Amino acid sequence: MHAVPIEVLIEKFEQLPGIGRKSAERIAFYLLDSMSRQEVQEMADSILHAKSSISLCPVCQNLTDVAPCHICSSPKRDRSLICVVENPKDVAAIEKTNEFHGVYHVLHGALSPMDGISPEDLKINELLLRLSTEPVSEIIMATNPTVSGTATAVYLSKLLQPMGVKVTRIAHGIPVGGDLEYADEVTLIKALEGRQEM
Amino acid sequence: MHAVPIEVLIEKFEQLPGIGRKSAERIAFYLLDSMSRQEVQEMADSILHAKSSISLCPVCQNLTDVAPCHICSSPKRDRSLICVVENPKDVAAIEKTNEFHGVYHVLHGALSPMDGISPEDLKINELLLRLSTEPVSEIIMATNPTVSGTATAVYLSKLLQPMGVKVTRIAHGIPVGGDLEYADEVTLIKALEGRQEM
Repeated sequence: MHAVPIEVLIEKFEQLPGIGRKSAERIAFYLLDSMSRQEVQEMADSILHAKSSISLCPVCQNLTDVAPCHICSSPKRDRSLICVVENPKDVAAIEKTNEFHGVYHVLHGALSPMDGISPEDLKINELLLRLSTEPVSEIIMATNPTVSGTATAVYLSKLLQPMGVKVTRIAHGIPVGGDLEYADEVTLIKALEGRQEM
Repeated sequence: MHAVPIEVLIEKFEQLPGIGRKSAERIAFYLLDSMSRQEVQEMADSILHAKSSISLCPVCQNLTDVAPCHICSSPKRDRSLICVVENPKDVAAIEKTNEFHGVYHVLHGALSPMDGISPEDLKINELLLRLSTEPVSEIIMATNPTVSGTATAVYLSKLLQPMGVKVTRIAHGIPVGGDLEYADEVTLIKALEGRQEM
C-alpha cells in the first residue's frame, strides 16, 4: 500500500531488535514527515560513521574507536581480573555501576548448539591468548543466567581451571528492590543456595 | 561511558518516536555488533533514498513518490468524497481496510493552541483550493478523537459548511472486540449517543 521507498524503509527498521511492524511504520513516517532533510542526513551519517569508526578491541573484543580500547589501556584498571561477558552492552551495563575495576572479555554470543553456535564462533581463543601473555589471577563469568549463558560459563570454567586460574560466577538471586512473591522458582532456589552469613 | 560515535548513534535513535534510551542502546549495539557493513550501508541508503524521493502529493498532501499520488490519480477512486486525516499514517490505516473508495486530505497535524499549532500550520488552504477546483459532495472528518483532533474537525466543519458541502464525522464508540467493562466513560457516552436502529 505504501510507496516503494517507504515500504523499503519500514522493512529495514523492522529488522532492528525490538521494532515490530507498527513501530517501524511510526519511525518511517516520522523520518519522512517530521524530520528535516538535514536531520535525516545527520542520522544516516551517524550510522555510517559509527559503523566505520568502531571496531573490536584487539585485547578484550569490546566495541571501540581506539585500539586497544579505553578500558584495556587505562592504568587504573586491574588487568589481572577479567570479567567475561556475552555482549558489548553487558560491558556498558557493568561499567554504569562504577564498581568494577578489572577488565573485560567479550565473547560475542553464548554457546547454543540449537542455533549452531559452537566454541569456534565465540572469542574464546582470544581469551586463551590473553591468559598465555598476561598474568591473570581471576576470571569472573558474567554470562547471562540463561541456559546458553550458563552452558558457556561451565564450558569455559572447565577449559580454564586446568590452567591454574581462579574462575568465579556472578551471584544469582532476588534482584534488589524485587519481591520474593514475584521471583520465579529457579531464582529463589539460587537465592537460597547462595545465602551468606550476615 | 560509550565511545563517542556509539553515544552519538544512541542519541540519534533516542530522538525517534517510541524509542527510549534502552531501546536506542540495543539498536545501536545491534547495528555495530550484529549487522554487516553492507547491511548498515543499505539501511543508511534506504533512509536517504526515501527522504529524497518522497514528497507531498500536490493534491492530497500525503507522502508520495509520484505527483499526484497513486490514490489521487487512480480512476477507481471517487474524487467527490474526501476523507480528512491528521497524518500520512492515518491514510495507511484506512487504506488497509480496503473499504474506502474516496480520496484523502492530509492536514499534517491538528489544531493545538497550547503547542502553538494554528490553522496556518495545517494544510487547510490546500483543502479549500481543492473545493474550489473540483466538485466535492462530502468531506469526512477522520481526525483523531482527541481534544485537538476534535477541535480541528469542528473548526473545519464550521469553515466548510457555508460552502455548501456536506461534512461528516467518523463514528466513535466501543471498538469491535472491545469490552464495555474496559471502555472509558467518554467512549461509552459517544457509543450511546451514536446508537443506531437494528
